[in-house]
Amino acid sequence: MKIAVAKGDGIGPEIMDAVLNIFKANNTPLEYEFVDMGKWVFDKGFNNGMTPEAKQSIETLGLLFKGPMETPKGKGVKSINVTARKTWNTYANKRAFQSLHGVDTVFSKAGIPIDITVVRENIEDTYGGIEHMLTHDVALSRRFITRPGSMQVIRYAFEMARQKNARRISCGHKANIMKITDGLFLECFYEVAKEYPEIKADDIIVDDLCMKLVTRPDLFDVVVLTNLQGDIVSDLCAGLVGGLGFAPSANIGDHISIFEAVHGTAPDIAGRNIANPTALLLSGIAMLQHVGLTENAAVIENALLYTLESGVHTGDFGDKSIPAVNTTEFANAIIANF
Amino acid sequence: MKIAVAKGDGIGPEIMDAVLNIFKANNTPLEYEFVDMGKWVFDKGFNNGMTPEAKQSIETLGLLFKGPMETPKGKGVKSINVTARKTWNTYANKRAFQSLHGVDTVFSKAGIPIDITVVRENIEDTYGGIEHMLTHDVALSRRFITRPGSMQVIRYAFEMARQKNARRISCGHKANIMKITDGLFLECFYEVAKEYPEIKADDIIVDDLCMKLVTRPDLFDVVVLTNLQGDIVSDLCAGLVGGLGFAPSANIGDHISIFEAVHGTAPDIAGRNIANPTALLLSGIAMLQHVGLTENAAVIENALLYTLESGVHTGDFGDKSIPAVNTTEFANAIIANF
Ligand SMILES: CC(C)[C@H](C(=O)O)[C@@H](O)C(=O)O
Ligand SMILES: CC(C)[C@H](C(=O)O)[C@@H](O)C(=O)O
Repeated sequence: MKIAVAKGDGIGPEIMDAVLNIFKANNTPLEYEFVDMGKWVFDKGFNNGMTPEAKQSIETLGLLFKGPMETPKGKGVKSINVTARKTWNTYANKRAFQSLHGVDTVFSKAGIPIDITVVRENIEDTYGGIEHMLTHDVALSRRFITRPGSMQVIRYAFEMARQKNARRISCGHKANIMKITDGLFLECFYEVAKEYPEIKADDIIVDDLCMKLVTRPDLFDVVVLTNLQGDIVSDLCAGLVGGLGFAPSANIGDHISIFEAVHGTAPDIAGRNIANPTALLLSGIAMLQHVGLTENAAVIENALLYTLESGVHTGDFGDKSIPAVNTTEFANAIIANF
Repeated sequence: MKIAVAKGDGIGPEIMDAVLNIFKANNTPLEYEFVDMGKWVFDKGFNNGMTPEAKQSIETLGLLFKGPMETPKGKGVKSINVTARKTWNTYANKRAFQSLHGVDTVFSKAGIPIDITVVRENIEDTYGGIEHMLTHDVALSRRFITRPGSMQVIRYAFEMARQKNARRISCGHKANIMKITDGLFLECFYEVAKEYPEIKADDIIVDDLCMKLVTRPDLFDVVVLTNLQGDIVSDLCAGLVGGLGFAPSANIGDHISIFEAVHGTAPDIAGRNIANPTALLLSGIAMLQHVGLTENAAVIENALLYTLESGVHTGDFGDKSIPAVNTTEFANAIIANF
């Protein structure tokens, strides 16, 4: 099976190389077509941050594995990540957050285990970018939520919850204020819920959700939200398990899916072979599961978990009394633990 | 000095009585005009949840101290709290979150001190409630941000930061996606910042902010945000210090200000004299400071902190090996510690 790979900007190339080396050492049956996409491609004059050839390859192959990409500056300019999600209608963004042994947080220290999957609607909401200045003093933006858009992401969330044997799925929303837009999303949630009677479905106001996530994160399992609220809650949950360096991300569509690292491009450390490839590797593992390479996914995931647990770490995390390793050494340690 | 007092719904009356008893025992020079406001007033047929006499009193006195109020159900019906904020143009919502000894959280256990003041724009954004169904399948809502609205809340935040000798003030926003609306807010932020060169002013994307708030909350001091993002971040911060039971709230306007408990009305325990009055007391202390009764505020605040630290607690928090006290006993313990 062949997939498209975009290494991205900044630390992208080095962490992608580390992950692909891990895949190779595991004899993962994947072939790669490397495509030109990122801020560096935008800078060459390609407005949406990819060449026509890249776009063509991705559409043919149906699967893109991508490193972090920098958002170009400027008022009219859109984020490359967001453009990609919209172009290919990847309507569900899934991020699974799990406590990792070896990655200390205040929650792990307090013995509170975290296992939360956030499913975020990935295309609608204020991400439409429909905004204008009404007068010099008044800025207006349109937020839209559609029934088909809500149904498809909610259905995906329930399917995913069923697959992972989730005990609970919660809809986060602000329907007490946005009674019509978030009201529609909530209505769709309970409509789909009827088809999954084995999963406990409930809803929670997003501000209350954020309060509970920092006090009792162990109470949540799968959470589904509209785009911007989902964006915020995803990052909050990333913080619960140690930050974006430990957060995988999958953008799921019916025809094309994108697995990506959502952390920054860390230009300050780019090219020094010291970046942490864990988030991209976790996304890669999710991708292997997605395409049915579940055995490869399991071997690599176990090796990663064992490596982290044994105290091996890059400079950005871990036990300071154990010296940090570089990106290549980190990948090799994982390979040694297959 | 005379102020309006609305006891509110559910546990409102009993926690308000506890707080006013504490004020009385401290000889706080305040007189009260009790006004009819809340869900129970709405149920009597007053659409905005208050009688015309209540409205008149509040407008004459300029200051309202209020207990929690239930939001009436129904599509066209607005939250009484939100209506009050809008009616009297209380454009800034200020919530100060501080770690409290005796209130254990994962952060206090990890030795991470929290002292964050969130200032939230209180009137604009999607709180305008301008929404409609465009078709059966498409819901639209309008988000608006204005220059005068942004300037006044940001100016308030900087003034407050100056008063509290804040080292840092951060603007939370999503201007990478909502380039025009949040862009306007951000532009106003840096415009006002010029007048306060002694305070370090920076900005942070709201999702990143939420991630950092759960990993390094000690890095933040004053944070100012638009309405909905501020709502979410406020609750997240409440969680950091133990929940809404420890979160004061002040709605500041040029003519009228409202100090309130923002937690729920807890109908399940209402009337049983077991509710925790701390959040309302903290709001009351902020109110005393606001009207210049700084000595009373200091005595009561110290007594509260000492009481919490000594392990006295209501049933909802604290060391389970020390028996819980009821609302009256909790208030009396504070009074005994003046
Ligand atoms: C970079 C940014 C546009 C993006 C978003 O808001 O979706 C990011 O925060 C994410 O979560 O992938
Ligand atoms: C009750 C609700 C309408 C309100 C809000 O969204 O502002 C509450 O969450 C708050 O923070 O005071």
